Amino acid sequence: MRSLIKGLAATCLAAIILTACNNQSSSKNGALSSSAAEKVYVAPGEQDDFYAFLSGGYSGNLTVYGLPSGRMFKEIPVFSQFPTSGYGYTEETKPMLNTSFGFVPWDDLHHPDISQTNGELDGRWIFVNGNNTPRIARIDLTTFETVEIIEVPNCAGNHSSSYVTENTEYVVAGTRFAVPVPQRDMAIKDKKGNFKGALTFYKVDPETGHMNLAFQVLMPGFDYDKAHPGRGNSHGWFFFTTYNTEEASTLMEVNASQNDKDFIAALNWQKIEAYVNAGGGTKMPTSYMHNVYDETKHMATSTTITEVLTVDPTEVPGAVYFLPTPKSPHGCDVDPTGEYIVGSGKLSADVTVHSFTKMMSAIENEKFSGNAYGIPILDYEAILGGSVKSGGLGPLHTEFDAEGNAYTTFFISSEVVKWKLGTWEVVDRKPTFYSVGHLMIPGGNSRKPFGKYVVAMNKITKDRYLPTGPELEHSAQLYDISGDKMQLLSDFPTHGEPHYAAGCPAELLKGNSKKIYKLEDNKHPYAVMSPADTRVERNGNEVHVYMSMIRSHFTPDNIEGIKVGDKVYFHITNHEQDFDVPHGFAMIGANTSEVLIMPGQTKTIVWQPKKPGVWPFYCTDFCSALHQEMQGYVRVSPASSNIDLSWSLGED
Amino acid sequence: MRSLIKGLAATCLAAIILTACNNQSSSKNGALSSSAAEKVYVAPGEQDDFYAFLSGGYSGNLTVYGLPSGRMFKEIPVFSQFPTSGYGYTEETKPMLNTSFGFVPWDDLHHPDISQTNGELDGRWIFVNGNNTPRIARIDLTTFETVEIIEVPNCAGNHSSSYVTENTEYVVAGTRFAVPVPQRDMAIKDKKGNFKGALTFYKVDPETGHMNLAFQVLMPGFDYDKAHPGRGNSHGWFFFTTYNTEEASTLMEVNASQNDKDFIAALNWQKIEAYVNAGGGTKMPTSYMHNVYDETKHMATSTTITEVLTVDPTEVPGAVYFLPTPKSPHGCDVDPTGEYIVGSGKLSADVTVHSFTKMMSAIENEKFSGNAYGIPILDYEAILGGSVKSGGLGPLHTEFDAEGNAYTTFFISSEVVKWKLGTWEVVDRKPTFYSVGHLMIPGGNSRKPFGKYVVAMNKITKDRYLPTGPELEHSAQLYDISGDKMQLLSDFPTHGEPHYAAGCPAELLKGNSKKIYKLEDNKHPYAVMSPADTRVERNGNEVHVYMSMIRSHFTPDNIEGIKVGDKVYFHITNHEQDFDVPHGFAMIGANTSEVLIMPGQTKTIVWQPKKPGVWPFYCTDFCSALHQEMQGYVRVSPASSNIDLSWSLGED
Repeated sequence: MRSLIKGLAATCLAAIILTACNNQSSSKNGALSSSAAEKVYVAPGEQDDFYAFLSGGYSGNLTVYGLPSGRMFKEIPVFSQFPTSGYGYTEETKPMLNTSFGFVPWDDLHHPDISQTNGELDGRWIFVNGNNTPRIARIDLTTFETVEIIEVPNCAGNHSSSYVTENTEYVVAGTRFAVPVPQRDMAIKDKKGNFKGALTFYKVDPETGHMNLAFQVLMPGFDYDKAHPGRGNSHGWFFFTTYNTEEASTLMEVNASQNDKDFIAALNWQKIEAYVNAGGGTKMPTSYMHNVYDETKHMATSTTITEVLTVDPTEVPGAVYFLPTPKSPHGCDVDPTGEYIVGSGKLSADVTVHSFTKMMSAIENEKFSGNAYGIPILDYEAILGGSVKSGGLGPLHTEFDAEGNAYTTFFISSEVVKWKLGTWEVVDRKPTFYSVGHLMIPGGNSRKPFGKYVVAMNKITKDRYLPTGPELEHSAQLYDISGDKMQLLSDFPTHGEPHYAAGCPAELLKGNSKKIYKLEDNKHPYAVMSPADTRVERNGNEVHVYMSMIRSHFTPDNIEGIKVGDKVYFHITNHEQDFDVPHGFAMIGANTSEVLIMPGQTKTIVWQPKKPGVWPFYCTDFCSALHQEMQGYVRVSPASSNIDLSWSLGED
Repeated sequence: MRSLIKGLAATCLAAIILTACNNQSSSKNGALSSSAAEKVYVAPGEQDDFYAFLSGGYSGNLTVYGLPSGRMFKEIPVFSQFPTSGYGYTEETKPMLNTSFGFVPWDDLHHPDISQTNGELDGRWIFVNGNNTPRIARIDLTTFETVEIIEVPNCAGNHSSSYVTENTEYVVAGTRFAVPVPQRDMAIKDKKGNFKGALTFYKVDPETGHMNLAFQVLMPGFDYDKAHPGRGNSHGWFFFTTYNTEEASTLMEVNASQNDKDFIAALNWQKIEAYVNAGGGTKMPTSYMHNVYDETKHMATSTTITEVLTVDPTEVPGAVYFLPTPKSPHGCDVDPTGEYIVGSGKLSADVTVHSFTKMMSAIENEKFSGNAYGIPILDYEAILGGSVKSGGLGPLHTEFDAEGNAYTTFFISSEVVKWKLGTWEVVDRKPTFYSVGHLMIPGGNSRKPFGKYVVAMNKITKDRYLPTGPELEHSAQLYDISGDKMQLLSDFPTHGEPHYAAGCPAELLKGNSKKIYKLEDNKHPYAVMSPADTRVERNGNEVHVYMSMIRSHFTPDNIEGIKVGDKVYFHITNHEQDFDVPHGFAMIGANTSEVLIMPGQTKTIVWQPKKPGVWPFYCTDFCSALHQEMQGYVRVSPASSNIDLSWSLGED
């Protein structure tokens, strides 16, 4: 009997232990939980543990997700017009998209990187690059809005970007497509030896984050693919993978895959900084734009810059070396200690790891195997830290945890392979579905990774989610990496095509997130501080409406005296001062978009009425029980009309 | 001792029952599962049970989610430019956004409705309305792409839209903001009695889905807010809520809230159809656009239509009645049987339900309490089916399950209230976080609801998710309604602001979802069927590039002979015929966006080079291990150059 009791009790205990995850009072990520469902579930009222910022790729924007839930909290418009908020359509934000090529309302956004202090994420800003029409943008992580975009002159395919140095001294932008520098009309077949690949360094103001182009290194005309900064011992250096060292200009899939090894370029930016500070470098005429958003004025301005300081790397001794790396290397990743530089040759099975210590020693001992356009090529064997015999195919990118492990994605064999730094031993591998590109561990590109999760970003989704016709979203997969073996937790679709991501603990940002814009700080020249200041002014054919909005009316809401042929500027100030009470403004037939205006903010859209009549406007964001009543009319008279301007609220 | 054993065994059993959800082998939605986490978790490799199509509101687009996971699978561009795919930027899709006001690249998208046959969802198309610049769009549910947009003339604030009748005979579009019809220059204060509210009926071709404006009923100048069709016994009728029957034109939050009751307009469209078929109605000159996308040609064309058939409702006996409804009613919802018309007076606590049987009887017995502009007002008591004493505040919208229950959202008291049709008894209520607007049960607007889940769409998110600065996404909440009591399962953010949604079982759509466009069916005039047909042709300053793309190159990839001042059309055909292998095309400095081209498809973007030089283009969608090599160059010579056009691939 005693044993029966014991047996029952033991069974009971086992059942309780096995099923502890079901205990609703246990933490959602409690150690007892073995269920993937429980691990990714964030119950209503609870919040995610990590922010993840995923590049949108061809969307031109940056998306903000929570981990472990995989829920998208915001799409931040950066390089693309965004009808949802009016970005790129309002008068205040149109300057953000100015370039030396004119107004360019789209880009291919890659590679987010969070600002760092002492090699650790400091959560102040996030930088991203526009690949197509070369630009770097900075997003303020208190407002989650794009506040600065600067063009990259002499560049084409701004791909080995936008990574920051250990104290955010610089953000870097590298050319993928070599071009003539300066641009000129020449035969494409004469590319070899005549094109350049510019590596551009922007100085970041430590207080404001403002970027200024410090110098541009004019490298040989290879394709500079990816980059990462040195850190720790290798702080002061920057590493860039190259491919197409063949300098082919056509059928690149064949012609750029001839060389057995391409290079990682190791660039000592501190040496170049000292060189230019001492008056080195050559000023070259150029033209590029610098667009800055002023949060107090709620508007952006564009400035054209006409000169760039260029540096010939062969004129700065000891500044640049080439590290031979098999085979058409793509990812260029530096481990948290700064000792290892990982080059993923996308046409190989193995991952090549260079040792920074060995590199320095090879430089000191002049272990060169030649030079390329005057830049020393270091001896491959002399610098090799190790090679990971992965068993996979098509390595692309590597991230790191805090335990000395590296995680490399393999595009062709569709997997994430975990291996040990130093021993190069493969310790785990997990399949991805399918064709994984980048991966991200929060802080995985810093001295302090938060190695709880890895997010794999996959390129192909077919049959993975409910089908949506020929066009599908890409897909992320979340793995728990807190144990020895990776555990696949969930799939979630991504918006646009993520090329890299950056993540950080929620605690780093959530306390600093701004809730409203203070109305009293609003210095927009067309802002109105009170409904009493609202008015309509005519200046020739230009009409300026100074309007305010608050639950649930516009002031004014009846306007007369507008004529066909007028250009009407609606400058609208949201007088709410509560969190999450935006209002919108839409005008029938406007050839732009609506505007979504946050509390305390002013935005402007232009409307050019084409026909006489009485035309409505309304609030586009359901703001109160009387939202549907938040509407008004504008009377438009013929161009020849003599009706005076008038405006009112509540006067029938 | 025996009792001790019994006690232990009972405890054990209880533990096992309580924790059965932890059984990894049980179905993810198995009856034994009581865990919300398990209920919303869709394991990698499994698929969601339902599609949910959420309106994007001010995004101008429609989003596709899976339920129960809450994951967003696609954003379908409808009324807004969409840099992600090039919609609204390509030559083929720009016509989709043409209107009588010119090119309008944005709208406020509301109220998706899936096509029906015999009152049940048939999953062929989904209709949505543009609120601001009045338009109706049709999306093909085999491609999940927008294939038709038609303007609504004489309308402003196209809000009581875009609902379909029981066999998709018609899709309806109703005016929210009364305007002069036809538009004319007049004083706003003279609105009362002089403005109209047009209710427009588009005939839907049962084979192709093509819409044609059949007739437009010119109603009194109230605000027509929401609508739903009759079904079952009430098939042949359409119901529209009105507010602002005061016909105020300013400070509407006060002036449009004076009347104790406004109306639901009941419109017998079969009677009006018969009337116009017999030659009734008045043709009015107007101008509106009809944009149709041809899937075979992969391009849209716009047609201007210059006439509309209008109907004066007082000239069609028995066609239109007003049903008095307290108080500024918003939602207008018809139950699955067609017997009950639910009007949610947003300024009241109670929900008013009209009986169709009683309405017909009141009409027959001429139980009128007056008329409005010649339209009979039915006696309130005579038609009242019942009133739900909700205890809530601010009822907005109601959906239905298949068990005779209704679910109403309350914006002010932030809750979903479940009540019984017929008894009007409140049987459950659950809070929402916060300020719920619409709700959706898959099929909940049809004769056959699938009452497993209800999705509540909330307007305010603050403190619900990790903060993202002043601008936050809105939020949906998913409730399990398969039991007597609703169970909150999860929160998920929504993209844009959902105004209604439509859902259906995955099985209805997934088998019909198109995977690729067959290249052999491609009738685009600039398509190339093989790389041998690629070429570049000049016609004055216009240059047409007939280009093809396949992993991993463009044909041609070197082009010379382009000059500054040229307008270069890149017509690019994707020669892939595998699912989920799109390619993209981006050209440095192009003032549009890239294009994302699906297998078998052709798209065109224009580039106007401004400076001589050698300029790169590349694929924007990571398509193979050699994606980075999928690039090319265009040489641009000065305008005065004599260099002939030439193009090549693989010839150095």
